[in-house]
Amino acid sequence: MASNFMHYSRDHKFLLKEWLDLEEVLNTERFKDGYSVDDIDFILDNALKGAREVIAPTIEDSDKIGAQYENGQVITPASTKEAYFFIQDNGLCSSNYDPNDPAAVPLCVLWSMLEYIIGANPSLGTLYLATGGAAGLIEDFGSQQLKDTYLPKMYSGQWAGTMDLTEPNAGSEVGNISTRAIPTGEPGVYKIKGSKCFISGGDQDITENIIHLTLARIEGSRPGTAGISLFVVPKYLPDENGNPGKFNDVICAGIEHKLGLHGNPTCVMNYGENDDCVGFLIGDAPGEDGVAQGMAQMFNMMNEERLMTGLSATALAAVAYHNAADYARQRIQGKATSNPKGEQVAIINHEDIRRSLMMQKAYIDAFRAMAIGTFYLVDIKNNSTDQEKVQHATNIYDVNVPLVKAFCSDYALECISAALQIYGGYGFTEEYPAAELYRDARIYPIWEGTNYIQGMDLVGRKMTMKQGQVFAVWLQEITDFVETNSNNSEFTREFGLMKKAEQQFGELQNILNSWREEGKKDMIKLFATRILHATSKLYAAKLLLEMALIAQNRINEIGKDHHDYHFYQGKVASARFFTRNILPEIGALVDIMQEGDCTAIEVDEAILGIGS
Amino acid sequence: MASNFMHYSRDHKFLLKEWLDLEEVLNTERFKDGYSVDDIDFILDNALKGAREVIAPTIEDSDKIGAQYENGQVITPASTKEAYFFIQDNGLCSSNYDPNDPAAVPLCVLWSMLEYIIGANPSLGTLYLATGGAAGLIEDFGSQQLKDTYLPKMYSGQWAGTMDLTEPNAGSEVGNISTRAIPTGEPGVYKIKGSKCFISGGDQDITENIIHLTLARIEGSRPGTAGISLFVVPKYLPDENGNPGKFNDVICAGIEHKLGLHGNPTCVMNYGENDDCVGFLIGDAPGEDGVAQGMAQMFNMMNEERLMTGLSATALAAVAYHNAADYARQRIQGKATSNPKGEQVAIINHEDIRRSLMMQKAYIDAFRAMAIGTFYLVDIKNNSTDQEKVQHATNIYDVNVPLVKAFCSDYALECISAALQIYGGYGFTEEYPAAELYRDARIYPIWEGTNYIQGMDLVGRKMTMKQGQVFAVWLQEITDFVETNSNNSEFTREFGLMKKAEQQFGELQNILNSWREEGKKDMIKLFATRILHATSKLYAAKLLLEMALIAQNRINEIGKDHHDYHFYQGKVASARFFTRNILPEIGALVDIMQEGDCTAIEVDEAILGIGS
Repeated sequence: MASNFMHYSRDHKFLLKEWLDLEEVLNTERFKDGYSVDDIDFILDNALKGAREVIAPTIEDSDKIGAQYENGQVITPASTKEAYFFIQDNGLCSSNYDPNDPAAVPLCVLWSMLEYIIGANPSLGTLYLATGGAAGLIEDFGSQQLKDTYLPKMYSGQWAGTMDLTEPNAGSEVGNISTRAIPTGEPGVYKIKGSKCFISGGDQDITENIIHLTLARIEGSRPGTAGISLFVVPKYLPDENGNPGKFNDVICAGIEHKLGLHGNPTCVMNYGENDDCVGFLIGDAPGEDGVAQGMAQMFNMMNEERLMTGLSATALAAVAYHNAADYARQRIQGKATSNPKGEQVAIINHEDIRRSLMMQKAYIDAFRAMAIGTFYLVDIKNNSTDQEKVQHATNIYDVNVPLVKAFCSDYALECISAALQIYGGYGFTEEYPAAELYRDARIYPIWEGTNYIQGMDLVGRKMTMKQGQVFAVWLQEITDFVETNSNNSEFTREFGLMKKAEQQFGELQNILNSWREEGKKDMIKLFATRILHATSKLYAAKLLLEMALIAQNRINEIGKDHHDYHFYQGKVASARFFTRNILPEIGALVDIMQEGDCTAIEVDEAILGIGS
Repeated sequence: MASNFMHYSRDHKFLLKEWLDLEEVLNTERFKDGYSVDDIDFILDNALKGAREVIAPTIEDSDKIGAQYENGQVITPASTKEAYFFIQDNGLCSSNYDPNDPAAVPLCVLWSMLEYIIGANPSLGTLYLATGGAAGLIEDFGSQQLKDTYLPKMYSGQWAGTMDLTEPNAGSEVGNISTRAIPTGEPGVYKIKGSKCFISGGDQDITENIIHLTLARIEGSRPGTAGISLFVVPKYLPDENGNPGKFNDVICAGIEHKLGLHGNPTCVMNYGENDDCVGFLIGDAPGEDGVAQGMAQMFNMMNEERLMTGLSATALAAVAYHNAADYARQRIQGKATSNPKGEQVAIINHEDIRRSLMMQKAYIDAFRAMAIGTFYLVDIKNNSTDQEKVQHATNIYDVNVPLVKAFCSDYALECISAALQIYGGYGFTEEYPAAELYRDARIYPIWEGTNYIQGMDLVGRKMTMKQGQVFAVWLQEITDFVETNSNNSEFTREFGLMKKAEQQFGELQNILNSWREEGKKDMIKLFATRILHATSKLYAAKLLLEMALIAQNRINEIGKDHHDYHFYQGKVASARFFTRNILPEIGALVDIMQEGDCTAIEVDEAILGIGS
């Protein structure tokens, strides 16, 4: 695509400085000697500058040349290498996971910066994004020796980390993996044998070593997820000086030819083809009951990857939106409704273009608040000493993770498609950025647990955790917010619509609960995706209104001539548009759930597909 | 993509033989000496066989090699040429437009066959699909000399026709075109000068000549659409023997690099770079009032192109659906809800996969009925001698055209994306057909008038034609159908839901009428797209129920062991699923229209895009 990257830091500044209580995090032991709130503008603008000037120009190589596979090795364009080290050397990624790095920023700040970096070239993301989480697993669960050997070089970005779960017959059903770990006699050291697929960044020619965090089953462990352990499997075994030494018999057997993210090598990885692949167990070996720790450990990282996915989808939708708005300002076509005999106008004046852009903006504002807000909860969870706050943050976070992953990625596709449509015929060409973003973003509803898995995580797990108390706390936050503001004179209609939506959501829950009581698991699964969307819309409206209240106060203070006036007006508009145009869709789902149609599961399988 | 084309003729046989009264068309003067209803099975199966065996294998060349541009010429893969002549030589396209061809089939039959041909390789479509319509314009409005010179070779497919409207500054606003026609002194012959873009099949190396049906403004004509005339501009001027002679100075200046349809050369065309391009006027030159006939003539063809677009979107969605269902049958993963400790099952047993496939099937059944049903109306309109029937068919057709174009193309994207999701990570690879279909189908909401243009055609034109009588007749057909069947015992819930939807649609119309009365043109435009979707859903539900009633009767006759049982059961399921799960969405739009939010048009333009 053309490298016309357009993104801005204003909204992140608002989120971090006006909406979230960032002081709360910056005052914790972890961050108190680091940056202050006053540094945020500089930090964000600097990252945005890097994204624009250094990363964005690499997108064409990534998309057009992409990652290539030759003789068992992945080859990336030279520009990819430069971009990678720019990101790592400038503290824009892995180093922030180092608990001892004084320059590290909280996750809500880091992922604000990363929204620019990802948006500037989405397919580089997988090359650097997994390393911090992989290191975190070693940090949290690994032996001192593993930490000493791997962490410094992973935090610096000198070595990359990957996450190796999926196998051809174990996608959504991770418990099926057949990769084996065979004890060697040396404690914690195993021979690894098996094959994985869809491993992002599984091989590359950028970093001198690649550390695969790999799920495998130690012989004799339980079947299913309970028997899975987690291993550190380096591409090259570190030698006595900690440098990459002997090749560890883990090899890339090929890469996928994909719809998008061409710069990301999606690898098939083979372990131990020559019986010479070694893995180092993280944590303890399974006890006599055969229960292993791998899945619980991996979930730590997985949850962050899910937030990363939602944030990445936001980034792409934002770039598509900004570019489309820019195009709509420049493209002259058609007359204004108010002056049909006048001159032709820029298409941004047309009602349907306005509808489309406003829809995109409202969704993107909601996605970003949802994603960055949830990263903020992780910051509180990880760093606060106030147990009550940690407890509450954990509670909200637990519910938010599937929403951030699935809601942002599903509706980002809708936003990007709407952005593409604004260009007319030009949108279908690869000369404008919409086409690549449309291709690239299609992965987000799939990876890190498909969006159906997220729906089931919400409906089957998060809504029922602790007898429903976790979800009740989450919902109470919305109820309290609406209650507190129900007399607000500037958003009377919006809070009225919120009240109605809450009531509809209550009906939705009643239906869902009745299905639970009647043991209708199939109905719950049938509606999981739709319930996740409805839940997310309720939450999105709440976040947008929270921000609109702040914005309206600012408007009242600063007046119309202030340079920030339009930004705040935009926040108010997003809340009004979303509550009036999108929130009412919850009502239709309640009607549909009341119908409780089970045609899809009752009919013969034979009616689907063949011959029909 | 992998050439695993999957498509079936069963549904088309149902539409043509059981749902529509095809006899009515086959008994007209035009077709009475041709095929009978008994021939339909053979005709369809033969086309399907050709699509599968001859066309489908060409898709990889089209997508991977595609149309290339070298030295002012478009080069296509050899397989494209073979596919083109297979289609034309076997009577699968242009010959059916020849009013004197005894082997021609009605449009509803032709486009059923073409659904397979298009689905087998979507990017070939533009190479042959426009010729019939282009010839039709010459047939309907051209001089005898034009007819004699061009029609035989266009009907045979020896020469291709294109439709040349769009210019860089005249996309949705066709009235802006600046291509000029300068009188030569010879009546009906003009020098053409200008440039066009997005001309599908504007150049190719397949046919020995290309006939461009070109819009241009004769000097002195009115500005805007009223002053546009239509010309026949051949690539090579026919010599005295009717063979391609002198080059006519119309040249391809480049082709677009596109998201999809790589096999379709999307051309920039330059006319008269050397002042040597001649165009032959179709119809009469503008009178003293400067009013020309070109747009009215072109609309004849444009309406059919719009139906073609809806049908093409249907074809792609159907191929995606059939392949995804097939994959879901083969892919083993996860346990059945009813037997969580049992063996793993094929994913087609999972509720969310069922929901997705059932949703796709219901939409596709509706798309196809809508598209083929509207082609049937064209057949009646063009061939019936019963003036009342012609009148009624024209009425329904007028309303249907924008629905077929926009509803099918918008929701086909949703269906294809859902099909892609079924594959999990494999869906994002180009090894399975979903990825290319996802790319290719993205054009359909754009070309032949963007879907917003369709929304405005519906709301601003079709709903208000003849003081609303045309739309009233259209709606009455639904009301009558529901009324007639309201006591049907097998579809009580469905007709109940239809009644509710009709009532909601009435409220929608009331709001729309109040906006009309208050002169709120901006609100009408703001909601046009959404109103088109709601109108289409009401109509789709009606069509699905019509078909379900027929299917239920058959089921009652044939019983469960009949080989057609599952087909009919599927028809019933589509109607049930659609009315219970999708139709209620109309209610949400009514709520939203009642809110009547105009945030998107009221806010300052400055809040959109930049900095936000």
